[in-house]
Amino acid sequence: MKSERATVRRLPERGAYDPETIYSILDENFVCHVGFNADHGPVVLPTLFGREGDLIYLHGSAGAHMLRILKGGAPVSVAVTSVNGIVAARSHFHHSINYRSVVIFGQATEVTDVQEKLHGMEVLTNHVLPGRWEEARQPNTVEFTQTVVLKLPIDEASAKVRVGPPKDDDEDLELDVWAGVIPMATVAGAPVPDDQLQAGTSLSPSIEAALARWPSR
Amino acid sequence: MKSERATVRRLPERGAYDPETIYSILDENFVCHVGFNADHGPVVLPTLFGREGDLIYLHGSAGAHMLRILKGGAPVSVAVTSVNGIVAARSHFHHSINYRSVVIFGQATEVTDVQEKLHGMEVLTNHVLPGRWEEARQPNTVEFTQTVVLKLPIDEASAKVRVGPPKDDDEDLELDVWAGVIPMATVAGAPVPDDQLQAGTSLSPSIEAALARWPSR
Repeated sequence: MKSERATVRRLPERGAYDPETIYSILDENFVCHVGFNADHGPVVLPTLFGREGDLIYLHGSAGAHMLRILKGGAPVSVAVTSVNGIVAARSHFHHSINYRSVVIFGQATEVTDVQEKLHGMEVLTNHVLPGRWEEARQPNTVEFTQTVVLKLPIDEASAKVRVGPPKDDDEDLELDVWAGVIPMATVAGAPVPDDQLQAGTSLSPSIEAALARWPSR
Repeated sequence: MKSERATVRRLPERGAYDPETIYSILDENFVCHVGFNADHGPVVLPTLFGREGDLIYLHGSAGAHMLRILKGGAPVSVAVTSVNGIVAARSHFHHSINYRSVVIFGQATEVTDVQEKLHGMEVLTNHVLPGRWEEARQPNTVEFTQTVVLKLPIDEASAKVRVGPPKDDDEDLELDVWAGVIPMATVAGAPVPDDQLQAGTSLSPSIEAALARWPSR
């Protein structure tokens, strides 16, 4: 998956290129940041994504600026980042963040085949809430037509990972400054049912699974 | 802060341009995604930032590719995103995410004045851990020289915010599909002290403040 542009240059020992590492970072997130060139220059926007195999899917309204540019085959960069902790060192210089991030480069293509597009929608839904696709109402023709689905191969991609304690200079170790890591995590809170929920409708399996996936601490 | 390019076009009712909204989203985050053009096309990378007034500061190694491009005045886009919940609707079409995001456009400039650069470093540190600047060892000359500090004005920026329950179609309200919001939040775990911490060194105020800022649920 390594390529010239998908190579970690700054602190290369933090770089990784194996699919297992890259996929695991993608799969623990569902929001990516997409970078592309508009007429006025670079743009970064957050959006949902879903992964299956060596593809990520993006979607959105047929009228959305970003999708109109990307489906034309414009070069794109997609970043996905997990923040795992704040690294507090004895010196400011060695302060850092523990993170796991992926950057993908390539060109997206629009998924136009009906079955493949429906499958892309399923991947997007189930990436966020595994199993949800079977629970909710499927798209009707108008909704299906208003939505654009894009796919982007994960063939030029790199991961960058920092883990562990601060790396202080030896001469700083005697300082009586607290140093260590504050772990950070994403958690789900108690689900808030919609006001108009039909009486007796209980949490569905995909919602239960989400609570288990992002447990409260 | 609105400009032609910093205008929310898709679902414009979710757009906001007032500094209070924009600053509050920036201040509840410390990782941004920076988009710029390299020779080979668009790049998005995650990095730390700090805000003070109408400026954000970025920093990094003098050798880093991104900083070399940005300090040359290349156009840049910076996105900051809070994910606040997963919105599960009765139909797939109305599934969504509750989020608060900011996108900034502009050009960064390198901070070269020594006092201003030191101040930028302080803003970056204290944005993540308020008060930490007074606790840890200040940069020495070598560290100071190896670090590049950039500033970017927040004068072309927009926020986009989605809050609240799913917006299902009326005819779907009778479906017995669970619908509602799974709130999402970032929390801090128990601090992990460095193995080589001096005996008797207790948590410092900035670390205590971080635990209060991102409380466990």
